[in-house]
Amino acid sequence: SRSIDLAVIPGDGIGQEVVAEGLKVLSAVLPQDVKLETKDYDFGARRYHATGETLTDADLDALKQHDAILLGAIGDPSVPSGVLERGFLLKLRFAFDHHVNLRPSKLLPGVATPLAGQPEIDFVVVREGTEGPYTGNGGTIRKGTEHEVATEVSVNTAFGVERVVRDAFARAQARPRKKLTLVHKNNVLTFAGHLWTNIFNKVAAEYPDVTTDYIHVDAATIYLVTDPGRFDVIVTDNLFGDIITDLAAAVSGGIGVAASGNINPSRDFPSMFEPVHGSAPDIAGQGKADPTATVLSVALLLRHLGHDAEAARIEDAVSADLAERGGLPARSTSQIGDALAARVAG
Amino acid sequence: SRSIDLAVIPGDGIGQEVVAEGLKVLSAVLPQDVKLETKDYDFGARRYHATGETLTDADLDALKQHDAILLGAIGDPSVPSGVLERGFLLKLRFAFDHHVNLRPSKLLPGVATPLAGQPEIDFVVVREGTEGPYTGNGGTIRKGTEHEVATEVSVNTAFGVERVVRDAFARAQARPRKKLTLVHKNNVLTFAGHLWTNIFNKVAAEYPDVTTDYIHVDAATIYLVTDPGRFDVIVTDNLFGDIITDLAAAVSGGIGVAASGNINPSRDFPSMFEPVHGSAPDIAGQGKADPTATVLSVALLLRHLGHDAEAARIEDAVSADLAERGGLPARSTSQIGDALAARVAG
Ligand SMILES: CC(C)[C@H](C(=O)O)[C@@H](O)C(=O)O
Ligand SMILES: CC(C)[C@H](C(=O)O)[C@@H](O)C(=O)O
Repeated sequence: SRSIDLAVIPGDGIGQEVVAEGLKVLSAVLPQDVKLETKDYDFGARRYHATGETLTDADLDALKQHDAILLGAIGDPSVPSGVLERGFLLKLRFAFDHHVNLRPSKLLPGVATPLAGQPEIDFVVVREGTEGPYTGNGGTIRKGTEHEVATEVSVNTAFGVERVVRDAFARAQARPRKKLTLVHKNNVLTFAGHLWTNIFNKVAAEYPDVTTDYIHVDAATIYLVTDPGRFDVIVTDNLFGDIITDLAAAVSGGIGVAASGNINPSRDFPSMFEPVHGSAPDIAGQGKADPTATVLSVALLLRHLGHDAEAARIEDAVSADLAERGGLPARSTSQIGDALAARVAG
Repeated sequence: SRSIDLAVIPGDGIGQEVVAEGLKVLSAVLPQDVKLETKDYDFGARRYHATGETLTDADLDALKQHDAILLGAIGDPSVPSGVLERGFLLKLRFAFDHHVNLRPSKLLPGVATPLAGQPEIDFVVVREGTEGPYTGNGGTIRKGTEHEVATEVSVNTAFGVERVVRDAFARAQARPRKKLTLVHKNNVLTFAGHLWTNIFNKVAAEYPDVTTDYIHVDAATIYLVTDPGRFDVIVTDNLFGDIITDLAAAVSGGIGVAASGNINPSRDFPSMFEPVHGSAPDIAGQGKADPTATVLSVALLLRHLGHDAEAARIEDAVSADLAERGGLPARSTSQIGDALAARVAG
């Protein structure tokens, strides 16, 4: 489409700084005839302290009008753990049915990795985004006593698992290696494990050209550090996906460059794009944050909206910038943003 | 005590081979006046195929008579996923209330790690062993239909969490750095997360000399590859412990050297010691398996039974062997066992 109507949620901590650079690069990459409209929303710790609200029905109605959402980061130590996570981030993912949580990992030339020998890393994790242990099901009895019992219920449905497994097979088929790995813990979590495994095997029959395998989540963490090149596309549940994508980010250049999309492929609701990193209050306001993860999230956003050429221009600019980075003096958040904007515009 | 009555469960695949070497080293290290009695138990795939049984009440009664249990590995591709895991391994951990699952990670000199720069790694994970998502609570409705729903319930009790947290504080206090890290996901799994966090903070007040911190499980995987030296003792739930200890093993020399103890500190039931690795059917019977993880599990067993000097002799022998290993020609399972037995006997 020739216009993009974007909801922008800078959020807390470094969120403000990195989103500013993401928008700078977005403006620079878009052709003249694509009209960009943005509207800022003030969510996060400040709003919570001022009003006690995290995300209201009216907020959801307003956000729903946009084509997509760009998020910086939400979270602050002044807010009790869980309040903003459950009350904003997860509420939004669930309300807009963001069931495909897409997290690519690519180790770009020149980028430092904690792994020895600079291995080749280029895979995508398709993390389920609306089920599993993230549903908020569970509860506590006898709270605060020596007889307290707290439960967390992982909910897995054939509907929810099949749609994300199908999405992952389609993504695997579109890639040169055409390989899909299911990551779960089906030898222990046998109820959910059987559901995931059976659906995975059923859908696999429809994709004879996609190679498949299965790995337990514990073993997957081993492969991510000893043989990350074995992965092409991974599909996994919400919690396992949370864990392995942080590890994946760490081995492929760090959370400073890890992008993600919370996607609803149906387009009934806007999808949301955000860096994998958090609000990093310890370095907020100092111009130290690396905006690259946000800029790469903007590329995912553009691809989702059909602007593939512009997405590729951003990714190429990031690759070129990172390849040069070792030779560059330390740069501030906005200097990196300026450099990327100049590259995509040029 | 001056006698050790050991139940030995070689199990499947490489379990047989590595346990033989573990016993070889155990015999070699014990002083003349300590009487070692062992009784072999045939559990695992063979027994399951022959009888359909995994672990009966009579088996539990028999195992209960011993001072401790040494296990090789259980699991075979010929058995459906989950049958032996739930029916044997987890059944035993739960029946004998093995609530302290102890997994040390130490990168020994000369040992290869996938991490660049050979970092210092020396920490212990205290993984809860009888609760969390491992309880087998949950179920499936409308199985095999498009309306299937499968649940897994993580059960956490004040009783169960407090005892393992106390164990971890005591271990942290006994170590030079006196530092304990709680790993959980209390911003999403808020019911269980609050229980764990509150109990952790309550017990911390009784250990003013122990430094504490908290890390989300996803972030913990990042630190395990970027800054593993930050960890001293970690306490965490059953599933998070499963995942991070495989990663911990990978970065500190691989699962070929990772030992574990399934400990019931009360001594009401025998504790069980086993390598972290599985039965590795692909290399079984070829004399290729590294018995070091089993030998180090024997050291944990000896320490649990109060034979600290012998445990230390084994650990020293393993350190010396590993330090030399790079210079040695490739050795078979029994050659490594022979070398370690010779060292501890000398
Ligand atoms: C902040 C938290 C709710 C979130 C998650 O667990 O999904 C984060 O870790 C992520 O990966 O996006
Ligand atoms: C085999 C399996 C049941 C077991 C677990 O998940 O605890 C294993 O991975 C381990 O870590 O000992």
